[in-house]
Amino acid sequence: MIRHVVMFKFREDADEAQRQAVYGAIATMPEATGVSESYTIGPDLGLAEGNFDFAVVGDFADQEAYLTYRDHPEHQRIVFDIIRPAITDRAAIQFEIP
Amino acid sequence: MIRHVVMFKFREDADEAQRQAVYGAIATMPEATGVSESYTIGPDLGLAEGNFDFAVVGDFADQEAYLTYRDHPEHQRIVFDIIRPAITDRAAIQFEIP
Repeated sequence: MIRHVVMFKFREDADEAQRQAVYGAIATMPEATGVSESYTIGPDLGLAEGNFDFAVVGDFADQEAYLTYRDHPEHQRIVFDIIRPAITDRAAIQFEIP
Repeated sequence: MIRHVVMFKFREDADEAQRQAVYGAIATMPEATGVSESYTIGPDLGLAEGNFDFAVVGDFADQEAYLTYRDHPEHQRIVFDIIRPAITDRAAIQFEIP
């Protein structure tokens, strides 16, 4: 199984409506792409200084399923049109899980 | 449930032995701390440029369990003595999952 993790920091001037639009758009991705086994998203709980603002952890059966998700037109649209205008930093990784 | 995610980038001069020492130390944490429901770790698969080098995703029953893990003396020892000397960048977040 492939675990895809990505974290973002919002632009300082991203207001609550824009943040909610980002969360809402990302929440549609499992259904839009149809290839994830598990898909979690959430805002940081505020337990530590310096944390990122929100994260997505998606699990995919194999590399092909992950790449189908990554390259899906609806995913690309949401990344370019909704996420990128709202964020300043991004941290990502994909790794194998049992 | 609390999902704790952390990613690291190794120092350029961290050799393979030092990287394996980091993975090995982190792999002992679930047993040493005794409070995680799920704990995954892995090196980046190399599917994208600019990714972090390795990540940990740990799930904990509640905030108290996560804080027990975070503040556990053995966790602190591994963070200070083994991880920090080997890395340049760290990205972290904790968020709620169902």
